[in-house]
Amino acid sequence: MNADLLARFHGVIPAGGVGTRLWPLSRASAPKFLHDLTGSGSTLIRATYDRLVPLAGERIMVVTGRAHRGAVMDQLPELCDENLVLEPEPRDSAAAIGLAAAILYRRDPNIIMGSFAADQVIGPVDIFQKALSEAIHTAATGKIVTIGIHPTHASTAFGYIKAGDLLNVANAPTARAVVEFVEKPDEDTARGYLAGGGFLWNAGMFVAPVGLMLEHLKSNEPDLHAGLMRIAEAWDTDEREAVMNEVWTDLPKIAIDYAVAEPAAAAGDVAVIPGVFNWDDVGDFAAIGRLNKASEDTGVISLGENVRVYSDNATGVVYGDRPRVVALIGIDDVIVVDTADALLVTTKEHAQKVKQTVEKLKASGATDVL
Amino acid sequence: MNADLLARFHGVIPAGGVGTRLWPLSRASAPKFLHDLTGSGSTLIRATYDRLVPLAGERIMVVTGRAHRGAVMDQLPELCDENLVLEPEPRDSAAAIGLAAAILYRRDPNIIMGSFAADQVIGPVDIFQKALSEAIHTAATGKIVTIGIHPTHASTAFGYIKAGDLLNVANAPTARAVVEFVEKPDEDTARGYLAGGGFLWNAGMFVAPVGLMLEHLKSNEPDLHAGLMRIAEAWDTDEREAVMNEVWTDLPKIAIDYAVAEPAAAAGDVAVIPGVFNWDDVGDFAAIGRLNKASEDTGVISLGENVRVYSDNATGVVYGDRPRVVALIGIDDVIVVDTADALLVTTKEHAQKVKQTVEKLKASGATDVL
Repeated sequence: MNADLLARFHGVIPAGGVGTRLWPLSRASAPKFLHDLTGSGSTLIRATYDRLVPLAGERIMVVTGRAHRGAVMDQLPELCDENLVLEPEPRDSAAAIGLAAAILYRRDPNIIMGSFAADQVIGPVDIFQKALSEAIHTAATGKIVTIGIHPTHASTAFGYIKAGDLLNVANAPTARAVVEFVEKPDEDTARGYLAGGGFLWNAGMFVAPVGLMLEHLKSNEPDLHAGLMRIAEAWDTDEREAVMNEVWTDLPKIAIDYAVAEPAAAAGDVAVIPGVFNWDDVGDFAAIGRLNKASEDTGVISLGENVRVYSDNATGVVYGDRPRVVALIGIDDVIVVDTADALLVTTKEHAQKVKQTVEKLKASGATDVL
Repeated sequence: MNADLLARFHGVIPAGGVGTRLWPLSRASAPKFLHDLTGSGSTLIRATYDRLVPLAGERIMVVTGRAHRGAVMDQLPELCDENLVLEPEPRDSAAAIGLAAAILYRRDPNIIMGSFAADQVIGPVDIFQKALSEAIHTAATGKIVTIGIHPTHASTAFGYIKAGDLLNVANAPTARAVVEFVEKPDEDTARGYLAGGGFLWNAGMFVAPVGLMLEHLKSNEPDLHAGLMRIAEAWDTDEREAVMNEVWTDLPKIAIDYAVAEPAAAAGDVAVIPGVFNWDDVGDFAAIGRLNKASEDTGVISLGENVRVYSDNATGVVYGDRPRVVALIGIDDVIVVDTADALLVTTKEHAQKVKQTVEKLKASGATDVL
């Protein structure tokens, strides 16, 4: 990639979601992105950062909650203060990504941002980086570019991207127009997408000139845009904290998909690079079962330090963060998550239902463990 | 019952077994008899003691391990020192029950002892006491009397008692001769016993004149008998501790069934009272499922203080001894036992296999949690 273009690229890592379906491992005080869920030795946010470094160097901005400042700095000690955006409270993805775009725009309107969630698992890294390189080249032609994921099954858990014609962009041979973004489908529709081809999973990866992002945001969400621009103006001054506190909590809560991606696609401004790397959003404990290898000794996937697993005819996943013995007998695909104040026991089949249980706990006032 | 006969009766409670199949709830440091496994508010040993009081008053002796002295005294504060027999180490039931018989014999050779394990669940109590009254009357005619349990299913987990003719003992209308004791049968044999009738479960309850117990013990296990008599002679003197330490650990290890009950039956010296009360030896966590009522809220049986259970389509048993949230999702007949250093997750179907897991843990050196 030519050096001028490369220098324009800045990574953005929104580190927001709690990962409710991974409770009680993930929770408000220790969200998903702060855990190593693949046994790689890296937390998800660290791995996300490291994937961007070959293209972005240290031009990487993280947007996270104020409560996670310390934990994020522990993970990313090289992150300088100007690249750490702390939200007083969650205001959804359009506010988070939009603020990053606005701050970067104020610093240099030529910046191309690439936004990648802090809690996804991707490999091999070089294939991801090749797709990202194509995305940057395509963004430079004046597009909002998403990297779509080749579906491996008829998932109803993800939104889809309908890809159109090849765009014939130099250095981005696989770049295609996006016809439209479609919402999470029902199972029949998902099967149709998989069989028919031309549909990719929407993993929320956006690479775009910051000006173009802000232009679409202004058209669709003028109040949100105005608020973010006010914060951005104050960002690199002494007023940062005061203006943030004044403006942030009144910003409209809306997903980047609705505020930018879908209307931009309708306007013909969105392109997609099909990603052929492996991708997992680690949406639930069944995913942790897929992403890790069972111990040959026990037949069980064991995550967390110091937990000692003994099994007799059992399979599944055990997470434990304390030095305890966990004995499993005659139980298949079990999920056991053992934390100081809460224990979850379920099966892979019911992994998605953890979210409802967390809602039930919240409703019953058991917020101390959430 | 006439007062002279009643005054001869002394209860004996061997409190020995760890209850390995109830690990990690039951363990060497906190065996089964020290737990309330029925939600009654009483530990099993307390309930056993209370069942005997109407007939034995405070003439009740407990035989347990030295390590359990404090816990037993907490449970039975009325127990005086002369009625607490502390074993330096477990030497099986013939040594435990035989020593009680020998000590009582030295005090008064006319005593009729009634030995009842500390870890069984029995009710209604008045029906048990009626059977015990018949047993005492029968013992007074010069018999070793067992109370047999009416089988409710073709169990392969218990030994059986083959009952013979009615003995026509005054005040013991249901007393019968015992033809023989039979070992735990295979399933076909157990089904035959149940269908044919005349077979009762051997619950290890023995009511007998102490002299007759010792006579059979002497014939079958002369070394054991001699050792026990040596200890008994020293028991109510200053030499108790010294002689116990010297003799105990060399005593033969043998079950009371082999050392006394079976040979005495062969000699025609054993009678049986059929017990028509409910009886459970709480042999595993499936038994805890039978003996307790599920919460209407959660569908789950919850034992232990402070544990907060949340469930979504789940049934089973949760024991927790710390203030934690335990969430169960989509899992039936699950057993979750949550203790400070060990967690067990299994199902009722596999409840019997807990023993093997404990053996595996022992073999692997994880004795810190056993």
